[in-house]
Formats: sequence, structure tokens, C-alpha cells
Amino acid sequence: MAVTKTLAQYVVDSRYEDLPKDVRHEASRALLNLCGCSIGGASHATVENALGAVRPFAGPGQASILGRREKLDILNAALLNGISSHVLDFDDTHVEAIHPSAPVWPALLALAEWKGVSGADVIHAFVIGVEVECRVGLAVVPDHYDVGWHITGTVGVLGAAAAAGKILGLDQQRMAWALGIAATQASGLREMFGSMCKCLHPGRAAQNGLHAAFLAACGFTSSEQAIEAPRGFGHVLSTRFDPAPIMAPWGKSFELMRNMYKPFACGLVVHGAIDGCMQLRSEYGLTPDMVDRIDLKVGKIVLELTGKTEPRTGLEGKFSVYHAAAAALCQGAGGEAQFSDECVNDPVVAGLRRRVHATVDESLSWAQAHVMITLKDGRKLERMVKDPVGSLEHPMSDRDLEAKFVDLTGGILGKAQQNNLIKLCWDLENLADAGVIARTGVPG
Amino acid sequence: MAVTKTLAQYVVDSRYEDLPKDVRHEASRALLNLCGCSIGGASHATVENALGAVRPFAGPGQASILGRREKLDILNAALLNGISSHVLDFDDTHVEAIHPSAPVWPALLALAEWKGVSGADVIHAFVIGVEVECRVGLAVVPDHYDVGWHITGTVGVLGAAAAAGKILGLDQQRMAWALGIAATQASGLREMFGSMCKCLHPGRAAQNGLHAAFLAACGFTSSEQAIEAPRGFGHVLSTRFDPAPIMAPWGKSFELMRNMYKPFACGLVVHGAIDGCMQLRSEYGLTPDMVDRIDLKVGKIVLELTGKTEPRTGLEGKFSVYHAAAAALCQGAGGEAQFSDECVNDPVVAGLRRRVHATVDESLSWAQAHVMITLKDGRKLERMVKDPVGSLEHPMSDRDLEAKFVDLTGGILGKAQQNNLIKLCWDLENLADAGVIARTGVPG
Repeated sequence: MAVTKTLAQYVVDSRYEDLPKDVRHEASRALLNLCGCSIGGASHATVENALGAVRPFAGPGQASILGRREKLDILNAALLNGISSHVLDFDDTHVEAIHPSAPVWPALLALAEWKGVSGADVIHAFVIGVEVECRVGLAVVPDHYDVGWHITGTVGVLGAAAAAGKILGLDQQRMAWALGIAATQASGLREMFGSMCKCLHPGRAAQNGLHAAFLAACGFTSSEQAIEAPRGFGHVLSTRFDPAPIMAPWGKSFELMRNMYKPFACGLVVHGAIDGCMQLRSEYGLTPDMVDRIDLKVGKIVLELTGKTEPRTGLEGKFSVYHAAAAALCQGAGGEAQFSDECVNDPVVAGLRRRVHATVDESLSWAQAHVMITLKDGRKLERMVKDPVGSLEHPMSDRDLEAKFVDLTGGILGKAQQNNLIKLCWDLENLADAGVIARTGVPG
Repeated sequence: MAVTKTLAQYVVDSRYEDLPKDVRHEASRALLNLCGCSIGGASHATVENALGAVRPFAGPGQASILGRREKLDILNAALLNGISSHVLDFDDTHVEAIHPSAPVWPALLALAEWKGVSGADVIHAFVIGVEVECRVGLAVVPDHYDVGWHITGTVGVLGAAAAAGKILGLDQQRMAWALGIAATQASGLREMFGSMCKCLHPGRAAQNGLHAAFLAACGFTSSEQAIEAPRGFGHVLSTRFDPAPIMAPWGKSFELMRNMYKPFACGLVVHGAIDGCMQLRSEYGLTPDMVDRIDLKVGKIVLELTGKTEPRTGLEGKFSVYHAAAAALCQGAGGEAQFSDECVNDPVVAGLRRRVHATVDESLSWAQAHVMITLKDGRKLERMVKDPVGSLEHPMSDRDLEAKFVDLTGGILGKAQQNNLIKLCWDLENLADAGVIARTGVPG
């Protein structure tokens, strides 16, 4: 079965006119969310350090870095925007744990700014990129992720290559090469979670995927069975490979519609606990001194991923469901401020954190949480969170996304510029030159 | 067991003064061989296409591309030299199928040219890079290679990172980060063999390894258990991981001393047959019209890999032991010229090729060949080649390597420049600025 070539043909044949309105709008939502994440993360030490290691070697200033004033060649701009978009762990998440925007949007923003690409073409390429990366991911999950691959990096490079290749107008053969050049660079280990390398993965995926499209455009060849061959992506990087999701008819449904946006600045598995604590805090006017203990019941994966009981830094706090619940109860929020070094070391938060107890309830999914708060006066308050805000069943509204964007970009962009960028994202499909997006993301 | 940190400490503690003389000289041999391969391959379509996809985005002209006049930033120069060094399949081979120079020398040449690094420091860093990549490779072979990883790409990036990190003077923690940043970018699928992507692997390994050292130097963090953790390099990229070769005491022996150089421009399995034909040709002054037939006995793998009886192109000729033997007898060589389209279609060579017969002798290893030439006058000449030239047991001499270099660089570098570059390689350890090597590899 010619999996790679079929996928390449799907991408080549895909037409903007066939995209439903809600899919096109979802691309705008993803873009607004990514711009907020990247601009909000643009001064993070991870980005500063990466930039330090890029600056002496970068090419002409072809493309902007969101939230910063430097310009870089498009490959390095894609790297930096890919890094910044993921650094706060606040970017979007497909139901199969892929963060779809982080590898794809940065490649497209850089290309659009350099070449002057229409908003419609950029939306189309983005939908294609997400479709490709998620289909390849669906072909190998869960084994691929379980063994230790950071799937956002490994499949993201294929998504970025497909998206960029569509803009470059690659024919089927060159599109297959672009996918192959991308596949043979698939990388990213889950061992890196908790270090700066976690967001290097989507950054390199954006950069290498974009470069793969240019290499293929220049006639650089690869295997044309890169995904399905016995020594290709599927079999080498996973013990399970089922090409069916890749081969499924194109355009009947879109993986982009199974994408979620985070209201809270940490992994989705913690959101149920935060949501539950915030609901009870708000309904009962709770303050930390009223609380004797918090008991959480969560799915198994929650404690596997976020079981740190004594985080020392903001970053470690993101991997502590104990901290997230305590901070949510103390401060009524789960934003970047709640995952700062300062908040993690705040004595009130830390004191409550030690009174948070978590146990596994196998009947709960990774998204769900049962919160029971025992007050010092003996009352017990309970909340079962089945579909936390941000889930597919309870998505953030457009207004929620605007508020998140404003929150993330405050102090970096001025009010007028914030509003302008929001408007440009909603109006994306009518833009003659989508390069204006990245340029408007630069502090004035 | 702190495998990554131990390896980082070994690299940090390693001292040039502790390198035996023969190890230092071997670095010069590897460098001369790499320069020949890169200069000889510099105009290959693979290199041209890669350059086309790099040129618009490259940074300042900090470093040379061997065999060409363009200059690129050091990261892209490392990429291009890594690609060109492997494109002819003529570079060196460690006994465990790693091509050690291709990812490491290009990173060091670029760094040396940009920073002005002494020859002694460059030799030391090269020995370290080869030691690191081969030790990590030894920890995961044969499973890692068997499953489909192109080991030159996957471990090469760690070698390049260690070598570059030594030049940058990283401390133990940053060296561990550099190894981790490299490990999480390990990639390269064997499915790409036969396409241009095969030599993209060492190219990216050189580039990403070099960049990993700069990222670590700038404080970009990674896991410090990148190699040994359950979701780290060893367990994710292989079903076998034995840290013993990595943890073995440093400096007792050197993997660089198990490195081989190819005298002939084709796979090692054909070298025995070529060697035997060349020996008999030279000893008996044979010409093709004197020969009635040639009978080869070879190991089983030889016919599996190189059993093409009627090659049509130079590339196919590399996979024909029949062609290789005929060309060796006709022309007394097995260089790039003998694997050109022209030679494959030469009527004298093709005529003799049809009189070459090959059978499997299970008692022979992949490296060995028995050659029997029946002359038209009835004489039968026999030669058993147990250890063909280029094997560890019968290595190419320094003069052999010089002749190979001259052959590969003819028509690209002038005679004086060839001699100058040869002299610089032999004199490497005394050079105050090893940057002169790459600059001398540019056509005058």
C-alpha cells in the first residue's frame, strides 16, 4: 500500500474551497491562541538561550519573532517561534496528545511573511499540516508515545513539511520527498520533559519541516515509502503501525476539529483538578486558611505525569497536580502567574500544597478529576469534573480565547496592537498578505 | 548509573597529552580521507540541491565548503560538508558500521575556521567525538541498526556535540546538556538508503551536534540522563541497551583505532574481489584481451548485496561484483572513475564483465574473496584474499591515502594545492590555526 504517496496526493489535491466554514474559523482560533502563547513566552529564558545560540549564525532578517524585535531568516524564525509557542505549556492539544499548532504555524508564519501569502492559502496549509501530523500520529499511537517519543516533535515535522510544501506548490513526487525528508528527521524524547529541550522539539519540527519542503522543491530526493516501509517511520518508531487513519478519505472530517485550547498554563491532565478547585472556591468563597485538606481522585496518567509533591520551580510546578490544586484554591486561577517560581515558593501556597492528597481512580479518564475539600469547620465540599473547561465537550469560546490572548500579551503589546492582532486573526481568510500577522506580533 | 553524566565527565577530563602518538596520527589520516571524499563529492547533485535549499537562508560566510567557493555560516557549512563527505559512500567505517568522520569532522572544521582553533585541540576533539559516538553505538548495536536506524546519523549527533563542546570548553553539566540536546535530535532511517537523504543524516548530525554544544553553552538545558533514562536514547531507540561500553574507563584504548578507510569507491563486500584482480593484473601484466574468464568465490552476503549482473549506471555498478572485478582487471583501479556511467558502459569492461562468474563459498567471510583467472593461453592464476586492503588487518598506508586523495580531488584542486593540503593534514598537530585546512580545501 503506497501510504506516503497517497498522503502526498491528498495534500496536492486538497482545495481551499472544500473546507467547511467552521474548519476555517478553527484555524483562526488556533492562530490567535498560538500568537498569545508565543508572545507571552517570548522573553522566557528558554527563548533567550536559544536565541543566543542562533544569533551569530542566522541569515537575513526575513521573518519576525513573535513578541520580540529581532528578525531572523525564516528557518531560524520558525525554530524560535516554535520554541516560544510551547514554552509555557499553554498551546493547543489534539485529543491524541499532539500539540498541533506549535510545529505548523511557525513554519507558515515565517513563509507567509517572507513570500507574502494570502490568508486563505495559509489557512488551507495549516489545516493540511494538522491533518497530516495527526493522521500519522493516529497510525502509531499509543505505542509510539508510550515507548517514549514526544509525538509533537516526531509527527510535527511531517505536518510542517506538508503545510510548507502546499504553499510552495510541490507536485506529488516532491510532496512525497518532503514527507520523507521530514520523516527521517523525526525526533524528540519524552525524557526531556521538564527541561528546555521539550520545546526545542516543536521548534526543530517547524524548522526542519519547512526546510524539508525547500529541499524537496530543489530536487533533494528521499524514499517514497518513508512512512510505511519496513525500515520507515511507522515500524522503526513504533511497535504499532496501522496505516488506516492515513489512508482514510480526505476531507470528510478534519482532525483540527478535535483540537483543544487550554485555559490553564499547564498540562491538560491537571485541568480537571484546577477547574474543580476554582469552582468550589468561587461558589463557597473559600480562602486557604479555611481548608483542612484537599483530596483528589484522578486518572492513573495524571499522577504518572504530574506527581511531583515538592516542586521547587515554576516549571516543576507544572508537573505537580498538588501545586496546581493548591494555587487554584489560593489564587482562583491557573495562569502563568500560578506557575512562576514565586508562586511555587509562596508559603501560603506551599503550606496548602502539603495538605493536598491525590489517589488514582481507574474509572476516571485523564481529563477528569474528583475534588473533595475538607474544611476546618468539618464541612466536606465535593465536585466531580467530567468535562473541564477547554475540553472538546466544553470548549473555550472565542471570547475566552481573546481574554487569554490579552492576558498573555499584556505588558508586551499595547492595547491597540492587541486588538489589532485579534482582529487580524478573526479576519485571516480575507487577508491578501498574511505576513501582517507576524509583523503585528512584534512589540511596537 | 549516571551514564550521561559519567560520559560528560570523561570528555571534560580528557587531556590531549594522554593521547598516544598513533591515535593522534590516525586523526590526521581520517581528516585527509574526509577532505578527499568531500572535495570529490562537492559537485554531486545531492550537494547542489542541498545548497539550493540553504543559500537563501544562510548566515554570514564564516566557514568554507570543501571543494566549493561558497562560504556559509558554520552550522550550514557543517551540514553541507557532512553531506558531501558521505555522498560518494567513500568515507571511513568503524567496525560497527558507523561512519565516524562524517558527523564529527565537518562540525570541527567549521568551528576551527571560525574561531581559530589549534590543530592539537582539533585532533583531541575529533578523537573524543569518535569515542563518544562509537561508545554510544556499541551500547545499542546490533538491535538499533537492525530495527532500521542509520547509526551514523543517530549516534553521530552525540559525537559532534561532544567534539564541539570540548572546543567550547563546556563544564560537566553543560557537556551533559549538550549530549542530551543531541540525543533528543537523534534521527535517520535506513529506508533512505539509495536516496539523497542517506547523506543528509551525517550532515544534520554535524549541524545539530555543533548547535547542541552552542545551545548548552548558552544555558539551554536538557535532561541529564538523556542516554540511560527509561525514556531516553538507549531504551527508546533500541531494544538492547548495555551501558558498559560507555562506562568503560576512558583512554585505555580508542575506538578511532578500529576505523577503516575504503580504497575502492563501493561497498566493503566487493573489496576482496577488486583487490584480488588488481594483484594478479599487476603481477602478471594482464590485459583484458588475455583473459578467457574470471571465477570468483565470495561470501553469501556479497551476492545478496552486489549480485547485479548487468548494471546500467555507475551507481548500479557499485552493486555489481561482476562489474567491479572486470573494471579492476581492465583499469587496475576501483575509484570513482570505475563506477561512472562511462566505465559501466565501456565495451571492453562490459565484455569482460560477461565473462565473470561468481559463486558462494559459505566458508568465506563478507570481506574475503577467492579469484581464479583463466587466461586464453590456458594458464590459471589464483589468489585468495583473506584481508583485503582497507581492512583493519591490512590498512591503507599513508601513501595509499594520499593517492586516494589525489585521485578524488584531481581537476578540482591544483597539484600544488593538493600537496599543500596533504602536508597540512600530516602536520595537523603542529598547526596554530587548523582553520587553514578548510580554507585550503577551496578550489583556488
